[in-house]
Amino acid sequence: MNGFLSEKFSSLVPYVPGEQPKERKFVKLNTNESPYPPSPKALKKAKEAAENVKLYSDPECLKLRKALAARFGVNKDNVICTNGSDEVLNFAFAAFCDEKRPAVFCDVTYGFYTVFADFNRVPKTVIPLKSDLGVDVDRLCVTPGTLFIANPNAPTGIALGSDEIKRLVESDEKRVVVIDEAYVDFGAESCVGMVWDHPNLLVTQTFSKSRSMAGARLGFGIGSEELISALETLRYSTNPYNVNSVTLAMGEGALEDEDYTGKNCAVIAENREFLIRELKKLGFFVTDSRANFVFCRHEKLSGEEVYSGLRERGVLVRHFGAERIKDFNRITVGTKEECGVLLAALEEMTGGKKQ
Amino acid sequence: MNGFLSEKFSSLVPYVPGEQPKERKFVKLNTNESPYPPSPKALKKAKEAAENVKLYSDPECLKLRKALAARFGVNKDNVICTNGSDEVLNFAFAAFCDEKRPAVFCDVTYGFYTVFADFNRVPKTVIPLKSDLGVDVDRLCVTPGTLFIANPNAPTGIALGSDEIKRLVESDEKRVVVIDEAYVDFGAESCVGMVWDHPNLLVTQTFSKSRSMAGARLGFGIGSEELISALETLRYSTNPYNVNSVTLAMGEGALEDEDYTGKNCAVIAENREFLIRELKKLGFFVTDSRANFVFCRHEKLSGEEVYSGLRERGVLVRHFGAERIKDFNRITVGTKEECGVLLAALEEMTGGKKQ
Repeated sequence: MNGFLSEKFSSLVPYVPGEQPKERKFVKLNTNESPYPPSPKALKKAKEAAENVKLYSDPECLKLRKALAARFGVNKDNVICTNGSDEVLNFAFAAFCDEKRPAVFCDVTYGFYTVFADFNRVPKTVIPLKSDLGVDVDRLCVTPGTLFIANPNAPTGIALGSDEIKRLVESDEKRVVVIDEAYVDFGAESCVGMVWDHPNLLVTQTFSKSRSMAGARLGFGIGSEELISALETLRYSTNPYNVNSVTLAMGEGALEDEDYTGKNCAVIAENREFLIRELKKLGFFVTDSRANFVFCRHEKLSGEEVYSGLRERGVLVRHFGAERIKDFNRITVGTKEECGVLLAALEEMTGGKKQ
Repeated sequence: MNGFLSEKFSSLVPYVPGEQPKERKFVKLNTNESPYPPSPKALKKAKEAAENVKLYSDPECLKLRKALAARFGVNKDNVICTNGSDEVLNFAFAAFCDEKRPAVFCDVTYGFYTVFADFNRVPKTVIPLKSDLGVDVDRLCVTPGTLFIANPNAPTGIALGSDEIKRLVESDEKRVVVIDEAYVDFGAESCVGMVWDHPNLLVTQTFSKSRSMAGARLGFGIGSEELISALETLRYSTNPYNVNSVTLAMGEGALEDEDYTGKNCAVIAENREFLIRELKKLGFFVTDSRANFVFCRHEKLSGEEVYSGLRERGVLVRHFGAERIKDFNRITVGTKEECGVLLAALEEMTGGKKQ
């Protein structure tokens, strides 16, 4: 018990980020980073911007918001830029949840949702995934509160289609529905196009994964002007310079090179399908992931055994302790070479392919 | 009224940052930025780090915390790094204020304190500055709650000495005292050395001003392990990757070049004293600022007239509407050349020197 920390936070359990190894050199497949560098255009703009950091960054993030608006076919006032998509999600929990509107999310999903709810001291309603690990759309449609859905879901990687998202958004036009599309670029359907007709829909995305900018911290939200202005009120009440000027410039550069992003995503998707096929041959159950990671459970080895065995062999993956998914590991899809190292280690651990 | 924003924020009035002009070229003396670029060592490290942003930044900020600890003679667990010092201040309002512990601050001080209190929905007690615009230490000592004191104060620039800070910190060892030293490097006394003996003292500083990194967003807090761990609980519950990896590296580089920082601060302090002398000759009352800005009121022209007249002449300064300081302007101390442009404009507006 910390004598100075306010009692209101006495039961707050912080999020535990994936390990960032500092000493030993691992094949790092634990935090869903891209194996590719950012676009050369992004790097060039970032380095230029670094020269001018004596001045504050633009609190309006105007150039980047305009570029994102053009990219996604909306207006700049439909876009908010944040310090990673974690920040826009946190603002959404604060802005759109309260005693009357609990935060509603799945039992197996991005682990930060429950922390955001607790940090903002709003009630939460947790809806279990179905037995096939799919999102229970029927039940979510009739559960009152503000919805937070990761699509594709994490750590399962399973995606909902547009029709299902539409059902969720239309289940109650008065409640806010947040679709967290952090991993959408690797093969799922984005619902950004729906924001025009659905003022209650907020879509969040990030530059961390598909644009190889995890370390630069850049996320954004797209929604109706009403939703965005509510979020901007909170941003201007905490940290109006939340996105630094090097990152803003890097993001602008990345958006000028969406071909590069698209090609990287296509390679990752291809590697994912390869990995899923090979993992199945080694006796793994693997979900139908549309993200840049796979989620798998071995028929004999426990989740902990797979995690430790890989770690001993220099491969870092992510294991979650939660009861329902403790037999699984989440493994980032890397380059073909990284997939090879992973599979060789697993072959050694599992005794090789079954056929 | 925003239909989606929670009622709990219905009376929240966001902070209004100083203007960041995008079109016209101004002599920009309105947001207390440094006129000098960051250290070449900082820029070199930043550019190297940009190459590797595909990986997440270190959520522990370990290298930078160790460097700050060495610089300030504390341990790494006495240091927290944040996205500007605004973020550590916001965490402090959240962590150390509640119904039982109001936020206590001066009527004329950094304008964000009142927003942080409202955003975190904690009660506030506002203590007026004395008639000479100095901080009323006697009254603050007997006012219950968590103290937030900018030293030097903004926008007055007036600094308290160590003895006065010590009185505040010792007035009640059970309450947290936050000393916001954003501007301390330009000629005030830091109280960082007091954290060893005073577990209730949190000192916050920033790389924005003296280290020319406003656009990079880097702040930090120094205090007892108990205070820092409370703040870390909140950081890990909102955005563990709050400081991006380019900025972390830039900060490490800046700390390797404190001579450069020191020289820049000395020139700014010299220019400030020159500016104060010259402003007085033009009929201004000027406070005894120890910061990188001056705070001045003309004997004939209103604050609004000085602001607008300078703006017409291409010089941007900061005017605050609050009743008690509406006759003043806050003017950043720039290079000798920028001081010259400012003084020439003011000479034209005021009719020249009095003697």
